[in-house]
Amino acid sequence: MSFPFTAKNVSLSKGPDPKTSIQVERDAQKLNPQAMQYFLEGSKERAELIKSLTQQMERDPILWTDGSYYDMDKEQLRKFTALKINRVARYLEGDSIDVFQRRLSLIGVFDPAVGTRIGVNLGLFISCIRGNGTYDQLKYWALDKFTAHIRGIYGCFGMTELAHGSNVMGIETTATFDKANDEFVINTPHIGATKWWIGGAAHSATHCTVYARLIVDDEDYGVKTFVVPLRDSNHDLMPGVTVGDIGAKMGRDGIDNGWIQFSSVRIPRFFMLQKFCKVSREGEVILPPLEQLSYSALLGGRVMMVLDSYRMLARVATIALRYAIGRRQFKGDNVDPDDEEALETQLLDYPLHQKRLFPYLAAAYVVSAGALKVERTIEETLLLLDDAVDEGDDVGIMKSIDAMKSLFIDSGSLKSTCTWLAAEAIDQCRQACGGHGYSGYNGFGRAYNDWVVQCTWEGDNNVLGINIGKPLVKHIIAIEDDGKVVKGSSDFLNQLKEYTGSGASKVVLNNAKDITDLKTFIKSLEVAIIRLSYETGKTVRKENFDFVGAELVNISKLKAHHYLLSEYVRRIDEHDDASVKPYLYDLGRVYAATVVLDRFAGIYLTFNVASTSAITDLAKVVIPQLCKQVRPNVVGLTDSFQMSDMMINAAIGRYDGDIYENYFDLVKTLNPPAKDKAPYSAALEAMLNRPTIDERERFEKTIEAGEILSK
Amino acid sequence: MSFPFTAKNVSLSKGPDPKTSIQVERDAQKLNPQAMQYFLEGSKERAELIKSLTQQMERDPILWTDGSYYDMDKEQLRKFTALKINRVARYLEGDSIDVFQRRLSLIGVFDPAVGTRIGVNLGLFISCIRGNGTYDQLKYWALDKFTAHIRGIYGCFGMTELAHGSNVMGIETTATFDKANDEFVINTPHIGATKWWIGGAAHSATHCTVYARLIVDDEDYGVKTFVVPLRDSNHDLMPGVTVGDIGAKMGRDGIDNGWIQFSSVRIPRFFMLQKFCKVSREGEVILPPLEQLSYSALLGGRVMMVLDSYRMLARVATIALRYAIGRRQFKGDNVDPDDEEALETQLLDYPLHQKRLFPYLAAAYVVSAGALKVERTIEETLLLLDDAVDEGDDVGIMKSIDAMKSLFIDSGSLKSTCTWLAAEAIDQCRQACGGHGYSGYNGFGRAYNDWVVQCTWEGDNNVLGINIGKPLVKHIIAIEDDGKVVKGSSDFLNQLKEYTGSGASKVVLNNAKDITDLKTFIKSLEVAIIRLSYETGKTVRKENFDFVGAELVNISKLKAHHYLLSEYVRRIDEHDDASVKPYLYDLGRVYAATVVLDRFAGIYLTFNVASTSAITDLAKVVIPQLCKQVRPNVVGLTDSFQMSDMMINAAIGRYDGDIYENYFDLVKTLNPPAKDKAPYSAALEAMLNRPTIDERERFEKTIEAGEILSK
Repeated sequence: MSFPFTAKNVSLSKGPDPKTSIQVERDAQKLNPQAMQYFLEGSKERAELIKSLTQQMERDPILWTDGSYYDMDKEQLRKFTALKINRVARYLEGDSIDVFQRRLSLIGVFDPAVGTRIGVNLGLFISCIRGNGTYDQLKYWALDKFTAHIRGIYGCFGMTELAHGSNVMGIETTATFDKANDEFVINTPHIGATKWWIGGAAHSATHCTVYARLIVDDEDYGVKTFVVPLRDSNHDLMPGVTVGDIGAKMGRDGIDNGWIQFSSVRIPRFFMLQKFCKVSREGEVILPPLEQLSYSALLGGRVMMVLDSYRMLARVATIALRYAIGRRQFKGDNVDPDDEEALETQLLDYPLHQKRLFPYLAAAYVVSAGALKVERTIEETLLLLDDAVDEGDDVGIMKSIDAMKSLFIDSGSLKSTCTWLAAEAIDQCRQACGGHGYSGYNGFGRAYNDWVVQCTWEGDNNVLGINIGKPLVKHIIAIEDDGKVVKGSSDFLNQLKEYTGSGASKVVLNNAKDITDLKTFIKSLEVAIIRLSYETGKTVRKENFDFVGAELVNISKLKAHHYLLSEYVRRIDEHDDASVKPYLYDLGRVYAATVVLDRFAGIYLTFNVASTSAITDLAKVVIPQLCKQVRPNVVGLTDSFQMSDMMINAAIGRYDGDIYENYFDLVKTLNPPAKDKAPYSAALEAMLNRPTIDERERFEKTIEAGEILSK
Repeated sequence: MSFPFTAKNVSLSKGPDPKTSIQVERDAQKLNPQAMQYFLEGSKERAELIKSLTQQMERDPILWTDGSYYDMDKEQLRKFTALKINRVARYLEGDSIDVFQRRLSLIGVFDPAVGTRIGVNLGLFISCIRGNGTYDQLKYWALDKFTAHIRGIYGCFGMTELAHGSNVMGIETTATFDKANDEFVINTPHIGATKWWIGGAAHSATHCTVYARLIVDDEDYGVKTFVVPLRDSNHDLMPGVTVGDIGAKMGRDGIDNGWIQFSSVRIPRFFMLQKFCKVSREGEVILPPLEQLSYSALLGGRVMMVLDSYRMLARVATIALRYAIGRRQFKGDNVDPDDEEALETQLLDYPLHQKRLFPYLAAAYVVSAGALKVERTIEETLLLLDDAVDEGDDVGIMKSIDAMKSLFIDSGSLKSTCTWLAAEAIDQCRQACGGHGYSGYNGFGRAYNDWVVQCTWEGDNNVLGINIGKPLVKHIIAIEDDGKVVKGSSDFLNQLKEYTGSGASKVVLNNAKDITDLKTFIKSLEVAIIRLSYETGKTVRKENFDFVGAELVNISKLKAHHYLLSEYVRRIDEHDDASVKPYLYDLGRVYAATVVLDRFAGIYLTFNVASTSAITDLAKVVIPQLCKQVRPNVVGLTDSFQMSDMMINAAIGRYDGDIYENYFDLVKTLNPPAKDKAPYSAALEAMLNRPTIDERERFEKTIEAGEILSK
């Protein structure tokens, strides 16, 4: 609001016409959204698959989701979630694993609770068995018992406890071997060891993969995994199992997260998952050297979250950008002040608005490439490992372990960086839609509430950041001290000497041109990581790793940006459709300039990675120029995500851009203007029509009463 | 989670004992929380008032709020909100305005919907009348009709429209003068002019202050204000008034936000608010020169939001810090690795955790001082203005207008900066509590959903930031071009020449000592604002103001930090209890180092306000050292907020620090472990126990069928 506001310069206008604004821009698009979609999904085939799966779900009477979803309370969401899972299970019976993973990823966009509940069963529960069980155990629990078809068994994942989350080593549930009966006794020793947050436990799950300390002959062998039945085939709770609903959550109300206490629950010895640890009939514990792989159950989830981040970024960027094209507010500097008939300025024509939103549009594109790559990598790595273990191939096993370590770093830094970025995107895109962003029907509120748990679960983002930063700093120390040579995705660290010591003053980004040259920019990330890790290493030598937690998290973020941008550029370079490349490169530059450099300017300047004049150019030249280039293509670049109106599920974000009519129509449909008063109107009316305070006080405090009572 | 995790080094421990952790620290406190509370609330008297008001509300059976609040759905919240308003109205009849404002501010902490609904009526509706109506109009609507006691009339505030929010000038509802009948005809010309988001409109309000274009004899006189009845004394809708519920929102479900369409609704001419604009019986429009003050209705709300920010920062910092003292996770570098019996490390003993949380603890303290000052300023300024207008004192009026302009800048930059900071604090404090932060019963989810609208309503934060940054840059341009001398809270801009041109290389923060010297730091903020504004001004001369929107928002933020820190230091300096000062100065330094410098390092380096070595020191020396100093006093510093368990309303944030017992007990109380299956269990069981796919497909696709059908 400007100061002062006299209204002379705004004439009485006809109603707003946002639909035309978007249509005019759509008609002017030169880029082919279909061609772009092939890039985003990795191939034409995959893009077509996505399209057909979306169509199936949109037409399915049970899976179909619309604005009424935002009016559902917890009980309704629980009920509809169960119906939807039942429905999805029918598709699952005909899907290949790859098709089903696509399907689940798409469901996660428009109903994340359904996605999670299935993911806990088929992702975490089965992954835990796959990671920790023998091949026969996996076959038995997943296939023979039909769990993989969500039939017979419904699994949940019992890792976290009330008092232990990130520190899985510290878990306190016990599994004590009872030699006499050849059983394990599962027990919750105290309140802190209550299994907590267990998705599906409250009402649904029949079995749980329980992380518990193996105790044999009073000796503690550390945390192992066990399949523990919770409910029988009549869905009644097993004796000794206490389960409760965890109640109100910030989001994901469709999930029946629960707590579990075990009171001396007995399971047969063969319910222990024993790929890496066996207990013999006589109580002998056999611990092979491969134990470190037992957390691999979480890796798949982390990788999926990178893909989720891409879709969430695409979704919220689409909503906010479509709104910003239709919405007009004030007559900006692009309007001739003498033109009384001129329309107000489209939000998206304000440079600040572009600077606020384009980073998330660019991030969707850049993250899409990294998501595909890390997904491919985990599939390959797990297959190789399984083969090596099956064949007892020790060299293959060690090689797979190296690959797993690299994947641990890449997936961890990507999971934390991308889920944070998506959370920020939801929040910022909401704010960019002003008051209408706060409406439930425009999707941001539910999206945020459902999303942000991704920053915490399956590896808290800060803890992950530390655990990714730490090995990189250790690498740097080892390179300096022992001349170690680093392999894999962090091999750029080997340039340590070139960029520290006498090379510490080498500037990588000297000007605007350096910033927009993506290969130079990727190099700048390498140098930033090297120098920050090197400085951090120096501090670690004096203090300790806990002391540099904040730096480790920053290193992890920079590492993720390096991975993402490198893969993005690689993908563009090798892409066979030249027509989309200029747009893609520009988005990569926007990402580099805004998501990376603008936020890490302090580090870039402190460590001479960028010159002061490069940072000045960034704000004055690079970002404005890039925004100007991207602006005309926004409709095409968002249409390229090919998210249907159902996937978007936001009244102001629909394809036709008719923001006000769509929104008002939905509000009126779901909340018909009342012909009656509100149910609580009586209380209000009683308040408004109450007698005066004197009357209600029986005139006991009036002057007259005072005279009588003072006599 | 570390790589690999073998569990040998964690021994089976007895249950966690977080209560003792916090009690030990509380017993060791040297600071007096009571004395500190006097500083925070401004005086002993005010602190005592706060205490007695809190006690009244805690014991009130209707106002009392506990964990069950988080389980309420929209309908329940609406109902209880109405009951609470009715209850608050009874207190109101006995309260002075000052006492009532304190009360309302406190209610806003534990039930913001109640606070807002009352605030819309007594704040916005009456403030609009006060700002735009004559004294007699104010007296009639507010006092004679008992609105100020929430009796008879319940007001709402009809500014925003579906297609116009920030641009109030652009509002399209019309108020056309009908000379024949001496009436105004209020009309909604099209869907875009539908009044939108109107708090209280859906079910409650009897009257609305409507912002509408005054049309007389086909001439448009711009936006004026009118009192328009919506419902009669029987609470039935007036003819021509259409009202609907806006439905699902991200938060504040207790508020019945509505939309309103007027279809030729007639009101008497004297329902126009006419302090600044009158229409005579003959249709003559008299526009005095003071029109710019007509937005003053929003100023009071902005000022309140600064106070709200203080209380929200205090609340969430208390929850997260108490949790971080009780919660232990991993054995950190502060634990002797050979000590098998050692407890795991308290979260708050990790330097990263301190760095994540202390900024918000510090911000609560620093914002408290600024909130008190800006609140005092608005009261004084409005009183002076009212007096001057009543007495027709033109000099006094012009002086008040100057003061209002200064207040517009201060309140706008504070509102946007502080509400953003509080939103960030809620999110970060939630994340710092890990999974338990995501539970509904620990308060963060509801707090976030309810809070973030503060960043949008009553002046969108980005629009405010632009409108605050712009006059500062204009000042700088005028100082350079015309030698203008700036007065008021921005007078430091007059140092322009000293710090630009040949003075552009003067560094203010050279080392750690400069950063922690608060007066030097405040000077650094002045220089940062001057140099950034000066550079921005240069760009504006070449381009335009829209081009530099991002810079303007940064200038506004820096201005707010300057205001807050200056007032904070001033308050400490003149405070009469020396015992609390060392703690206060340290928190001021934490704020300067983390909330300001760490985030604005890029700007500080780019403009030579800080040296590279100062920024290096910041991370390696200043922040770790400050955190170390603050750490032992955390329990005392949070206890000093004196927020009762009801105000906190978070199971893991209670005073006794018994985080697990409190939390588990609440979860079990509100969600008793089920003796029965869930209501939707039948659907789940039907899914799990469904026949095989072959059977369900009537064996039509079996090999046997294939043989028959292929014959």
